Amino acid sequence: MELLKAILERRSVRSYTQEKVDHFILDGLIEAGRWAPTASNSQSWVFIVVDDSDLIVKLKSISPGIFCIPAFIIMICSNSEITTRNGAQGEILALMEVSMAAQNILLAAHAQGIGTCVVRSFHQKSAAMLLCCPKGILPELLIVGGYPDKKPSTPLRKKLDEIRYFNRWEIK
Amino acid sequence: MELLKAILERRSVRSYTQEKVDHFILDGLIEAGRWAPTASNSQSWVFIVVDDSDLIVKLKSISPGIFCIPAFIIMICSNSEITTRNGAQGEILALMEVSMAAQNILLAAHAQGIGTCVVRSFHQKSAAMLLCCPKGILPELLIVGGYPDKKPSTPLRKKLDEIRYFNRWEIK
Repeated sequence: MELLKAILERRSVRSYTQEKVDHFILDGLIEAGRWAPTASNSQSWVFIVVDDSDLIVKLKSISPGIFCIPAFIIMICSNSEITTRNGAQGEILALMEVSMAAQNILLAAHAQGIGTCVVRSFHQKSAAMLLCCPKGILPELLIVGGYPDKKPSTPLRKKLDEIRYFNRWEIK
Repeated sequence: MELLKAILERRSVRSYTQEKVDHFILDGLIEAGRWAPTASNSQSWVFIVVDDSDLIVKLKSISPGIFCIPAFIIMICSNSEITTRNGAQGEILALMEVSMAAQNILLAAHAQGIGTCVVRSFHQKSAAMLLCCPKGILPELLIVGGYPDKKPSTPLRKKLDEIRYFNRWEIK
């Protein structure tokens, strides 16, 4: 799929069929994620791909931000052993790295006809326990996904002129 | 450009020609950024595109993370008036939104032959003052860019098997 088409057409999808997504395709999404930039090439992320039905139900039960049963959940974690090397900004940089990898994953999924939605509203400690994360592997966000059940509508966006400035902020 | 090609080939570029980038093209980058997802469609970001040579030099002087004179700098800010509506998580969600918008911008730039690099190492308060940001418009990251002077090498990346798990974390 053409890049700009993917960027402009991708929507958050919150309703999926129960069709499973092949591991081969899911690996392709992580492959896209790992090529997002990281601070000093730190690669502080870890990706846990959940497609076990029982685990998905359990993850949903501790995630107010998940509204349906997806076909898969990708939990992106930061690795504090790595992020602490970046000093006081380490935690913020880790969040940025996770988010940029997530955006690549959303786009790559859309290009494969897979719908996704980013979820931050989940109980991070419980999710870490559920997926056996050791100390230092910190769940930062979830990407829930699957083949779309219905096509979402396009959200209203502010106009470019409202949010873009040249050279300095000014009253609009 | 094809999406996966853009994702896999994009590199952080840190050396640029002094050729200016048209406002039309820069607007296209912001257009890509504003279609990244935001929490509850909050659209908490503001994009300040700097291509005034004097301002670029001044921004560089307060940014240890900028190593050369780029053709432009996009300063992405969060708007605290909006982010505080998202409660305790507002600041984290804003960082994530800014980062996901940034990733779209990096990809869209690459597709146009423009090199970019994300910079978090800059003095945020000074940058806000320099670009006349009012209280509540908080600079979160810079994207520096321009037409590449030389092609960067490919950084070493961890293998997929080292960073991807299925259903639970485990010792590798």
